[in-house]
Amino acid sequence: MFRKTILLFLVFPVLASAGTQQLPLINQERLEKNVFALAEYGKKVNGETSRVAFSDADIAGRSYVIGLMEEAGLDVHIDFAGNIIGRGKGSEPELKPIAFGSHIDMVPDGGNYDGILGSLAAIEVVKTFRENGIITRHPLEVIIFPNEEGGVMGSRALAGTLKPEALEVINSTGYTMAEGIDRIGGNSSKAREVAREKGSLAAFLELHIEQGGILEQTKTDIGVVEGIVGIKWWDVEVNGNPNHAGTTPMDMRQDALLAASRFVIAVNEVALAHEGRHVATVGRINAQPGAPNVIPGRVSLSLEIRDLSSDKIQLLFNEMEKRAGQIAEESGTSFQFRPIDATGNPAMTDERIRKLISEAARILGLSQRLLQSGAGHDAQEMALLAPVGMIFVPSKGGISHSPREFTRAEDMANGANVLSHTLMAIDRKWD
Amino acid sequence: MFRKTILLFLVFPVLASAGTQQLPLINQERLEKNVFALAEYGKKVNGETSRVAFSDADIAGRSYVIGLMEEAGLDVHIDFAGNIIGRGKGSEPELKPIAFGSHIDMVPDGGNYDGILGSLAAIEVVKTFRENGIITRHPLEVIIFPNEEGGVMGSRALAGTLKPEALEVINSTGYTMAEGIDRIGGNSSKAREVAREKGSLAAFLELHIEQGGILEQTKTDIGVVEGIVGIKWWDVEVNGNPNHAGTTPMDMRQDALLAASRFVIAVNEVALAHEGRHVATVGRINAQPGAPNVIPGRVSLSLEIRDLSSDKIQLLFNEMEKRAGQIAEESGTSFQFRPIDATGNPAMTDERIRKLISEAARILGLSQRLLQSGAGHDAQEMALLAPVGMIFVPSKGGISHSPREFTRAEDMANGANVLSHTLMAIDRKWD
Repeated sequence: MFRKTILLFLVFPVLASAGTQQLPLINQERLEKNVFALAEYGKKVNGETSRVAFSDADIAGRSYVIGLMEEAGLDVHIDFAGNIIGRGKGSEPELKPIAFGSHIDMVPDGGNYDGILGSLAAIEVVKTFRENGIITRHPLEVIIFPNEEGGVMGSRALAGTLKPEALEVINSTGYTMAEGIDRIGGNSSKAREVAREKGSLAAFLELHIEQGGILEQTKTDIGVVEGIVGIKWWDVEVNGNPNHAGTTPMDMRQDALLAASRFVIAVNEVALAHEGRHVATVGRINAQPGAPNVIPGRVSLSLEIRDLSSDKIQLLFNEMEKRAGQIAEESGTSFQFRPIDATGNPAMTDERIRKLISEAARILGLSQRLLQSGAGHDAQEMALLAPVGMIFVPSKGGISHSPREFTRAEDMANGANVLSHTLMAIDRKWD
Repeated sequence: MFRKTILLFLVFPVLASAGTQQLPLINQERLEKNVFALAEYGKKVNGETSRVAFSDADIAGRSYVIGLMEEAGLDVHIDFAGNIIGRGKGSEPELKPIAFGSHIDMVPDGGNYDGILGSLAAIEVVKTFRENGIITRHPLEVIIFPNEEGGVMGSRALAGTLKPEALEVINSTGYTMAEGIDRIGGNSSKAREVAREKGSLAAFLELHIEQGGILEQTKTDIGVVEGIVGIKWWDVEVNGNPNHAGTTPMDMRQDALLAASRFVIAVNEVALAHEGRHVATVGRINAQPGAPNVIPGRVSLSLEIRDLSSDKIQLLFNEMEKRAGQIAEESGTSFQFRPIDATGNPAMTDERIRKLISEAARILGLSQRLLQSGAGHDAQEMALLAPVGMIFVPSKGGISHSPREFTRAEDMANGANVLSHTLMAIDRKWD
C-alpha cells in the first residue's frame, strides 16, 4: 500500500500536497464539445435529436463514440449483446477490471444528456488519464450499454437477466430487440452468452444526470446515489353502483369515483405521513360508464410505490389498502388490488463506494447530498455483478426524457471529475 | 259551479258520499295485461324488450297502442311530428282540451315501464270513463309522444322548440330523426308545423315511474312532482405539471389528479352542505398522460348540477368554483370551467295541479310526498304550453333505463287512479 501511494505522488508531484489528493481535472470544454457533437447524430430539422436504439442515428452515434474511445487509447469491441466495450490495460493485469460507463440511446422525444453524459464523461476520464500519463493498477472497461431505454438490454445481458422473450419486443423503430442487436453489430443468437460471472468486476461506476429537481433546488453540485428504488405497481378497481345522476339523491349514492378520489388523497396522505424518500403515485384513472349524467359505478386506477426498501413499499401499501377498506365501508363501495408483474426490486449502491464518491466531492470542493435514484439505470443490473457507485449532477428544472433536458457544462465537468477521483480511489485502495 | 257538482253527484251517486269524491277505479288487471302485451313488441330471445324510436318494433307497438285508443273510443290520428293524438269529445266543446299521456319508445337496453305506464294508464283512464258513462266537460287529448328518449321529439314539436338541426340526428336504429318521423307516419317536412299556441290546452298531466328510489325507500305510494330539474354541464380541466413519478419527491409535485380528486370531494361536500334536493355529479374523468409512472399533468372531468332553480344551480356552481380556486392555490395547479350547451332549464309544475294531485291521493287513501323529477320528460316541454302536473309511482330498487325496471301492478293502478281523479278535478273546477 505504501509503495503505491508513493508511486502516485511521483506521477502527480504538483497536486500531491498535504491533505489533498486532487488528480488532473478533465477538460470541460472538450466534454461539452463531444456532447454537442453526439447530439448531431439524429438531429431533426427542428433542432431536436432523435436517437432511439437500433435506429440509423443510433448506429452512426455508436460509430462516433467508438472513434472517441479509440482516440482515448482504449481497445474497443462490440460484444454479442451489442455492448461497446473499451478496454484499458492496468499495471496489475491480474486485478479485476473496474468498469464504468452509461448509454447513448434515447427515448423518443428524449434529450441529449440522459446516459450521454455518463458515456462521454467515462471516455473523457480515460483521455485525461492518458494525457497525464496516469496508469491505473486495475484494468479498465468503459461500457456503452445498448438500448438502455428499451429495458436496460446491454446490462441485463451482462448480468445474465436478459430473458429470451425480451428479444421479441419491438421498439419504436419497428425492429425487434433481436433484429436491433444484429443491426448494431452484436449477434442476437449469442446475446445471452455475454453474461459475466458474479464478482468478475472490481466495481462499476456510472455518472448520470439526476432526472429530478432536488440538486438544482437545493443548490447542490453532486448527488451521492444511495440506491436505485424498487418499483411496485397495482391495478386498483373500485366498485360502486352506477345510477341515474338526476334521480339518485346525494345521500343514496354509492359513487365509485367519489370513493376513488378519497383513495387518491389517502395515497398521498400515507406517503407524506412517513419519513423517507419513497414516492407513491396514481397516474391513470378511468370512470365507467363515464357519462356526465351517470354516477360512476366502477373506477380503475393505477397505484405505483417506489422506495429503496421492499419492506417499506409493502408497509406503505398495507396502510393504503387499510385506508381503502375504511373508505369502502363508509361509502358502500369495494376495492380490489391486483399486483402487476412489471416491477423491479431495489438495488443499493456499495457503501464503501458512496464514501469514496463523497470524499472525492469533498476534495474537489463540491457540495453534495445523498440521493436515491427514482429511475432505473444500467447500474441496477450491474449491481448483480459487482459493487456499484452512482454519481448524479443537476438537471435544469428537473426535466428529463424531453428535448428540454439540460445540464450545464460546469456540472457535467464536476460529475466527470468526481467520477475520475472515485475511480482512482478505488484503484488505489482496493485489490 | 253548483250545477256541475250536482251533475257529478248524479253520475256517480254511489261514490258521492260525504267527504269523498271517489270516482270508479281503473281496472288494475287490464292495465297490467296491456303493459305485458306491449312488452311483446320488440321482445328478444332473452326475454328483454328492445323498442328504440323508429325501429320496426316501435312502429308495431304504436299500432297496438292506436288499437287500444280506438277501443277506448278516442278519435285517433298521427300528427306531422309523429305524435299519436287520441281525441275525446267533452260536454262543453268550447273549453280547451285537457291533455295527458307519455311515450312508448325505449332507450337501448331499456325497460317496460318508463313512459309506457303513463301511456297505457292514460288510455285506461279513458276506457274506465267510457265504461262508467263518465263524460268530461273538457275535450280530452291522449298524446303518445314519439322518440322521447331521443330528445323529447314529439313534445318539442308541439311546444315549438324542435330545432331544424335536430332532424339530422341519427339514433341507434341508424335513421335520422327526419327519416324516423316519416317511418312512423308523420311528415318530416312539416313536423315543426304542429306547434301549438301557448295557452291552447287547459292542462297537461303525465303519470310516470319515479326512475329513482325515494318512494320505495320511504314506502310512499305517490310522488307529487314539484318540477323537472334544470341541468347544467361543465367541462372542467385541471392543469398541473406532468413529471417523472420516480424522481419527483412528494413535496415537489403539482399533481393534477390529486387536485382533481380534492375537487370531486369538494363537489360532493358543497352539494351535501346545502338543504334541498339538488344533485351534483362528476361522471367522467381522464388523467393525462395516463401512465402509472407519470404524475398526471392534466385531468379533464365533467361536472353536472341539477335543481329546480337555476339560481340554486348557479349558487352551488359558484361555491364549487371557489373551492377549486382554493385547491388550485394550495396545490400549484389551475382549474378551467367551460359551460356545455347541452343543458335544460328547470320546469315547475303548476301549483294548483299539485294540490289537486295531493287531494286525489288523499281521497284514494294513498300516502304521498313532494318530489322533484331528476330526469327530463315530455311534461317539461308541455309546460311551455299549459299548466302541467306530474304523478310518480315507485320504481323497484330505483332502477330505470334497464331491463330490470319494474313497478308493481298495484302501484301502476294507484298512479292511474290518481291521474283520473286529478283529471276529473281539473275538469270540474277549471274552465
